Amino acid sequence: MKQQMDKNSIDTRILEELCDAVGRENVFDDIEERVCYSFDATKERSLPDLVIKPHSTEHVSNIVSIANKNSIPICPRGAGTGLSGGSVPIRGGIVLDLKNMDRIIELNARDLTVTVEPGVVTKDLQNEAAKHKLFYPPDPGSARFSTIGGNVAECSGGATGMKYGVTRDYVLALEIVLPDGSIINTGRKTLKSVAGYDLTRFFVGSEGTLGIYTKITLKLLPMPEKLGTIVSYFDDFHDALNTSDSIQIKNRILPRSLEFMDAACLASLKEGLKAAIPEGAKSLLLIDVDGNEKNVTNTIAKIEDICRENNALKCEVAKTAEEREVLWEMIRSVPSSLFKIATMKFNDDFCVPRSKVKDILEKVYGLSRAASVKVAAFGHIGEGHINLNVMYDDGSDKEHSAHTFVSEVLKEVVSIGGTITSEHGVGDAKAEYVKLELTAQEIELMQKLKKLFDPKGIMNPGKIFV
Amino acid sequence: MKQQMDKNSIDTRILEELCDAVGRENVFDDIEERVCYSFDATKERSLPDLVIKPHSTEHVSNIVSIANKNSIPICPRGAGTGLSGGSVPIRGGIVLDLKNMDRIIELNARDLTVTVEPGVVTKDLQNEAAKHKLFYPPDPGSARFSTIGGNVAECSGGATGMKYGVTRDYVLALEIVLPDGSIINTGRKTLKSVAGYDLTRFFVGSEGTLGIYTKITLKLLPMPEKLGTIVSYFDDFHDALNTSDSIQIKNRILPRSLEFMDAACLASLKEGLKAAIPEGAKSLLLIDVDGNEKNVTNTIAKIEDICRENNALKCEVAKTAEEREVLWEMIRSVPSSLFKIATMKFNDDFCVPRSKVKDILEKVYGLSRAASVKVAAFGHIGEGHINLNVMYDDGSDKEHSAHTFVSEVLKEVVSIGGTITSEHGVGDAKAEYVKLELTAQEIELMQKLKKLFDPKGIMNPGKIFV
Repeated sequence: MKQQMDKNSIDTRILEELCDAVGRENVFDDIEERVCYSFDATKERSLPDLVIKPHSTEHVSNIVSIANKNSIPICPRGAGTGLSGGSVPIRGGIVLDLKNMDRIIELNARDLTVTVEPGVVTKDLQNEAAKHKLFYPPDPGSARFSTIGGNVAECSGGATGMKYGVTRDYVLALEIVLPDGSIINTGRKTLKSVAGYDLTRFFVGSEGTLGIYTKITLKLLPMPEKLGTIVSYFDDFHDALNTSDSIQIKNRILPRSLEFMDAACLASLKEGLKAAIPEGAKSLLLIDVDGNEKNVTNTIAKIEDICRENNALKCEVAKTAEEREVLWEMIRSVPSSLFKIATMKFNDDFCVPRSKVKDILEKVYGLSRAASVKVAAFGHIGEGHINLNVMYDDGSDKEHSAHTFVSEVLKEVVSIGGTITSEHGVGDAKAEYVKLELTAQEIELMQKLKKLFDPKGIMNPGKIFV
Repeated sequence: MKQQMDKNSIDTRILEELCDAVGRENVFDDIEERVCYSFDATKERSLPDLVIKPHSTEHVSNIVSIANKNSIPICPRGAGTGLSGGSVPIRGGIVLDLKNMDRIIELNARDLTVTVEPGVVTKDLQNEAAKHKLFYPPDPGSARFSTIGGNVAECSGGATGMKYGVTRDYVLALEIVLPDGSIINTGRKTLKSVAGYDLTRFFVGSEGTLGIYTKITLKLLPMPEKLGTIVSYFDDFHDALNTSDSIQIKNRILPRSLEFMDAACLASLKEGLKAAIPEGAKSLLLIDVDGNEKNVTNTIAKIEDICRENNALKCEVAKTAEEREVLWEMIRSVPSSLFKIATMKFNDDFCVPRSKVKDILEKVYGLSRAASVKVAAFGHIGEGHINLNVMYDDGSDKEHSAHTFVSEVLKEVVSIGGTITSEHGVGDAKAEYVKLELTAQEIELMQKLKKLFDPKGIMNPGKIFV
C-alpha cells in the first residue's frame, strides 16, 4: 500500500482489517491508483475510496465480508471496457479489480468445458481454446481487452450472436462470493443440468449487483473448419437491410456474423483506413460464415449473389486471414473513429424485432434531424441489434438535447417491442430508462430479489435501479 | 361441472367463487375427471380436489388469486408426460389443466419469433414453424404429446441439444401469473435483451413452483436445408463411446443428434421392430446431421468411416424420410419397450462430463450386477447425458433395492462432477437427491427465492424441495 495522498472515507481500523485479510500489497488508497479506477468506457467518473486486487476466492470472500459488516460499497471490475457504467464506483467504496485472478484453471477438450477465473481476457480464452481446436463463440467488440468476468456480469453479446447466442448460452457453472462473503456454487460442469432453480443464468447479466464470480465454467464447441468473410457496400441502407432479410429469411442461411454500419460510420472511417470504401457507399454489411471448407466457399458465393441482387455497389471476399482482419478492424475501429465527429458520445445499444429495423432507423434519422443531433448506427443487424452513437460537443445544452433525443428513441424502441439494452447492460447510464420497458411491479420484484441477496445494498449500488 | 361423486376438500363457497371466476363449465370436481389428473408419466398417483381448465390469462389469474387467498395448492399441468412427478398434485388442491390454452398467437417469420400459449403441443409448434421453413430445435422424446408450457417448466432438452441447446436457449419472453394472481412480463420479443435481472431464464425450469406461464415467446431458426441420419451398431459400448469422441473431438463434427442405447435396450426392442438389428449388437449410435445438401452427404460419409474405424458391426444410412422415421421410432420406443423386462421402472436421468461417460456406465453395470437390479441405459450421449432405466417387478423389497441402487448411482454421478438431473427436472421423484448436488446453503437460498415469489407455498408444493 502506497502512502495515502488524498483522504478516503474508509476508517483506518477497517483499512487495517482489509490489509490483514488480503495482504497490504493488494490494497491501494493512493490517489493515482484510485483515479485509474474511477471510470470505464463511458465518460462517467467517480473516485473509489480504495482499490483492492485480490488473488483468490478467499481474498474476495474476506474483502466482501469486511465490506458487508461495515456497509461499504463494493464495485467489482474486469477491464473497465463496459459501456453502461457497470464498473464505475458511483457510490465510492471499494473497487475490486479482478485482473489478477486470471488463471485458466482447466480446459478439458473431451468435456468441451473450460473453467476460468473472472480476470481472464476474453481473447486469451478464445486463443487458448483455439490451441485445442475448440471454439468459445461469444465475441464482444471489446474481446481483446474485456474479461470473462465482465462478459458474464453484462451478459455480453457480440458479432457471433446470430448463430451462436450470447455469453449466457455458454455459462455452465459459477462459483460466487455472495454479499455476506459466503461462497456458493451454481450449475454443474456438465452440458446439461436442471437440479433446482437456475441460479447460474440468474446471475449472468446481474451487473455485479448480486455477488462476485470467482470461478466460471464455460461450454466450448468444436472449432469450425473454415471461416469465410465478405463485405458489401450499398448506396442506401434499405438495400443492406433487404440483403440481411434475404440471406436469413428467404435463403435460410444462418451466418456467423451479419454486421451493419451506416453512412455516418463510413464517413468517419474514410481517413487512414486500409479497406477501400467505394465512392457513394452509404451502408455496409460485413458477413462471416463458418463451417466446412466447401460449404463456406459455396455459401459466400451465394451471399455475394444475394448482395448483388440487392444493388450492392461493391462486394469483396476476404482471401486470407489478413484480409479478413483488415475488414474486421474496420468494424472495431468505428466506435473510436466517431469521436472525429464530436468530442462527446453516448453509446446507446438497443434491439428491436428484426422486422422493425427499417422503421426504427428511419425514425432515428428523422428524430436526429429534428433535434440537430449527430448520430451513427452500426450493429449486429441480423439480430435487430443497433449500436446508436449519439455525438455532441461538450456543453450542457448540447448534452441536454442529446439526452432528450436518446429518451425519445428509446421510447420508440420500446413501443415497437424492442429492448432498451441488448448487450451493454443497464448500469447507471441507462437506469432511468428501465421504467420504459418494465412495469413498476416488475422493477419492484427485481429490487426484492436484489434485497434478498444483498440486504445492505453493498454490491455495486446505484446500478440497474435508479 | 358434473355432479360431485367423491368428496373433495374444497369449501363450497370457494368452489362457487371459482365457478363464477372462470365459468362453471371449466371446473371439474367429479372423481372420473380427478382420477385422470392424478398421475403423470411416473407411476406416482395423488388425487386433486379440483380440476380447472382455463381458457385465458384472466382465467388463470382469477383462479390463482382465489387459491392464494384460501391457501389452496395449485398444480399446473401440460400433457402430464413429465418424468419427475412435476404435474402430480401431491398435496391435493387444484390441477390447472392448460391444454385449452393452445393458441399459436403469432409466428413472425421475419422476426424469427413465435408467441404461443402454454398448452401448444411441441410437435404442433415444430410443424407450424416448418410451414414457414423455420425450425424450433428443442425436441424432447415426448414432443408429440408434451406442451411448450411443460417444456419450459422443466427446461426440456432432447435429441437436438448437442448442436442446438435446450428449451432455455429459445425462450425470449414470458407472460407469467404470479402466485398472488398478478401478471408480469419478462424478457422481450427480441433476439437479445439485458434490461434488469434475467427473470425469463430464472423461471425456465422452475417446475411450476414460482408461477404459471400464460404466454411464451420463443426464438426460431431458419430451417436447415437437409437432414441426414445414420445408425451404427457395435458389439461393445466402448466402441460406441470412442466413436462419439472421434466424431466430436478428433473430427470436430457437431452433429444435430448423437443418441446411444445399450445392450438391454436393444434386447428389449428385438421383437416387433421394423429396423433390423444385427446379431451380436450390444450398442447403437443414431446420428443426425443437418445443413446444406452437399455438406450433409459428405458429413454422413465421414461419420460412417469413423464408425467403421471404431469396429461398427453395421452402419445404415437413411435414404428417405420414412427410413429416418423408422430409425427414430426405434429410439422413441425404448422407454415403453423396457416394460417387457419388468413391471416397474424408475426413469433416472443424469449428465456427467463427457469424458466420464465410460466410467459411469461401467460403474452402473457393476453396481447393478451387485444389487441384482436390471438396468438399461440410453440417451444423448454426445452431451454426457444418460437415461438410466432401473427395472424391477412389483414388490416392496425389489422397490427398496432399486431405490438404494439409484441413490448409489447418483452419489457416484455427483462425485465425478455430474448432475442428478439433466433434463427431466427434480419434481418430487428426485427431491431427496438434491442434497447430493447442492449444499444446505444453496438449497436454503433457493427456498428463500421460492418464498419471495410464493409466501404461502401454493404453487406446486412438494416439488424440488423435500
